Amino acid sequence: MARWEPDARGRLLRTAVDLFAEQGYEATTTAQIAQRAGLTRTTLFRLFPDKREILFQGQDDLITVGVDAVHRTPADAPAIAAAAAAVAAIADAHVADRAGSRRITGLIAASPELRERAAFKRSSITEALQAALRERTGSHRLAGLLTDVAVRSYYDGFDVWISTDDDRSFSAVVLDELADGEAALRRLAGELTGPVPGRGARSRA
Amino acid sequence: MARWEPDARGRLLRTAVDLFAEQGYEATTTAQIAQRAGLTRTTLFRLFPDKREILFQGQDDLITVGVDAVHRTPADAPAIAAAAAAVAAIADAHVADRAGSRRITGLIAASPELRERAAFKRSSITEALQAALRERTGSHRLAGLLTDVAVRSYYDGFDVWISTDDDRSFSAVVLDELADGEAALRRLAGELTGPVPGRGARSRA
Repeated sequence: MARWEPDARGRLLRTAVDLFAEQGYEATTTAQIAQRAGLTRTTLFRLFPDKREILFQGQDDLITVGVDAVHRTPADAPAIAAAAAAVAAIADAHVADRAGSRRITGLIAASPELRERAAFKRSSITEALQAALRERTGSHRLAGLLTDVAVRSYYDGFDVWISTDDDRSFSAVVLDELADGEAALRRLAGELTGPVPGRGARSRA
Repeated sequence: MARWEPDARGRLLRTAVDLFAEQGYEATTTAQIAQRAGLTRTTLFRLFPDKREILFQGQDDLITVGVDAVHRTPADAPAIAAAAAAVAAIADAHVADRAGSRRITGLIAASPELRERAAFKRSSITEALQAALRERTGSHRLAGLLTDVAVRSYYDGFDVWISTDDDRSFSAVVLDELADGEAALRRLAGELTGPVPGRGARSRA
């Protein structure tokens, strides 16, 4: 089956999504996925530790793409531009098309195990971008804030992108979400007129 | 063993942490935990679906406490006060003491499975607070931003709290983190002078 091995990862993804949709994620075995994809189980396990990871393939590549985008943003550009470049680059590197993304999103929503894995993916992306932005800005808190705003725009943008059929690319939708997120940030900052009401006793703002 | 059942959940937590620390999370069985805690496996499985959930007990209670705090914040208070009240209330409801929290944190860091579950806990708290704050503010984006800032303060505050031995309560540390987070937010808002550099073509700010 060596002639089939090119794009084995992509074929396993499409086959796994088909089988999960047909008979459920829990009921589908790696043997069934490998067989329908025309691959051996050995090949499958060489590429993925289990059936779940077939759906989350490419996570490390996305993280690398995002971190590289932070590093490539000119040093004199504002930090938000580096965060924007990161999530736009991640969106551009996203492999599945809109219809495929809808199907995968539906599968994840239906499985607690997959929802948990998806949350971990988001936290992994967040941690990596935060580290890169901290290195760039020298501020742990500013990096955290920038990362949260950008990553939320990425995920909200994903939801918008798969629920519409307009002509904008995924990354364009993400950047539009980010512009709206910045507007919310300006609005909130304008409402912050004093210390947080509460019990915090220390002042180091 | 009925006389032991009061605080069965707390005893299972302490016993599980002991056993995970002694022999590793993977190698520890629910039978061992139940036996050392002086409970039957039936009692354990009545309380928790598996050994992992013993460590994450109370998550639903924390979410309820946080959402209630949002609802109890006076309607004329700023939205950030509701977010602050939520994470302070969650910190006050946190059960484990500082030493116990350190041990649990160490166990989670050492296990990919537990790190994944911890990420899911954070996303569950985030989603619940965001829904409550959206209801309060009427704005999806403002609610998301407030939630991110507050939840990040909670988790960063947790890291500070377990790494120090000063007299501040966990919730006081969280509120101090939040004050610093607000300062970062003001700083970032001050740097936002125009649209995000990038490819977003739509303007709806």
